[in-house]
Amino acid sequence: MKIYDVPGFPNPARVRIALAEKNAADKVSFHDVDVMAGEHRNATFLAKNPAGAVPILELDDGTCISECSAITEYIDQSFDGISLTGSNAKDRAMINMMNRRAESMVLDAVGGYFHHATDGLGPDLETYQNADWGQRQKEKAAAGMKYFNNVLGQSDYVSGSDFSAADITLFAGLAFADFATVEVPAELSNLQAWRAKVAARPSITS
Amino acid sequence: MKIYDVPGFPNPARVRIALAEKNAADKVSFHDVDVMAGEHRNATFLAKNPAGAVPILELDDGTCISECSAITEYIDQSFDGISLTGSNAKDRAMINMMNRRAESMVLDAVGGYFHHATDGLGPDLETYQNADWGQRQKEKAAAGMKYFNNVLGQSDYVSGSDFSAADITLFAGLAFADFATVEVPAELSNLQAWRAKVAARPSITS
Repeated sequence: MKIYDVPGFPNPARVRIALAEKNAADKVSFHDVDVMAGEHRNATFLAKNPAGAVPILELDDGTCISECSAITEYIDQSFDGISLTGSNAKDRAMINMMNRRAESMVLDAVGGYFHHATDGLGPDLETYQNADWGQRQKEKAAAGMKYFNNVLGQSDYVSGSDFSAADITLFAGLAFADFATVEVPAELSNLQAWRAKVAARPSITS
Repeated sequence: MKIYDVPGFPNPARVRIALAEKNAADKVSFHDVDVMAGEHRNATFLAKNPAGAVPILELDDGTCISECSAITEYIDQSFDGISLTGSNAKDRAMINMMNRRAESMVLDAVGGYFHHATDGLGPDLETYQNADWGQRQKEKAAAGMKYFNNVLGQSDYVSGSDFSAADITLFAGLAFADFATVEVPAELSNLQAWRAKVAARPSITS
């Protein structure tokens, strides 16, 4: 298996953490996509993912899986270790739901701000910007952080008592917030304590 | 189990079709949410889904599952019948991926146009509109339809040879396009033929 990604980018980080949680990082090879040179928009790349986004998981038979939730699903089902996506119908649905909330309310909202209301990846790559939309997304991210602070006042992890893919997504969203200088307020104490706990996991520190 | 939804709305339609595909429509009760009266923004509803969106699946123990992909996951795992989300790691990942593409490239793009560049649900409910963003989403939806036309030139269904949750999402996206007067071009013949085939399924016609 081969991962096409960009080290340090938020969505690729989700897949790298998932692989590390499953002790499977050495089971895949990595290809660094040269986003700044536009590699993600050439025909070869777009044939692998028409959305022109990293990461992509390419299986040995040539099948290309994109979208982080799909890649995480595949990784979780293909390797032993802790379950990242749940092991019964209710847990699976709840993790799926919380993962989507972590995406839409934090990670994607931060991305909307970054790509639309800041210089983002620069004028060559940011070919459409809508500053008003971007500012609105920043407000959405702030509200999302408050929501998760409340959630984490009632449970140890984002989707209940166990670490899951939803924690990975929220953690990557906060890292993206730092990068995009979207404040993660110190007074959101549940969120901050959870973040410190997740940051100490071997999948993050290694 | 109880579904909170609005009959005819695009995301609720996805869940109703999924239930019908599993012959489980009679296993749930339905509560019609009065969106035009703002019921989805009152405290009782927001406690069930902080995103203020339909549909919600409420389990008998009071657990509320929102986000269509999560609800579909739960329905698929809870009832017998055809698999909507795949039965092995690769199929599950591919259906997950194609479902996300049907959402982002068509259904959500049409929604972005509808809510931002048309009157949408009216001034009381559309409290933030960004017409330029909305027009951009209309272009995205048009490109998404072309993409799926190509996909459906190579496979019988959106994610390979079998009907899945990804077909339901794309079908709902095209119904939303009709409602929002976003053209589904007649010359996209693979997409049109697939749409007629899906429209003839008992889960749709009944």
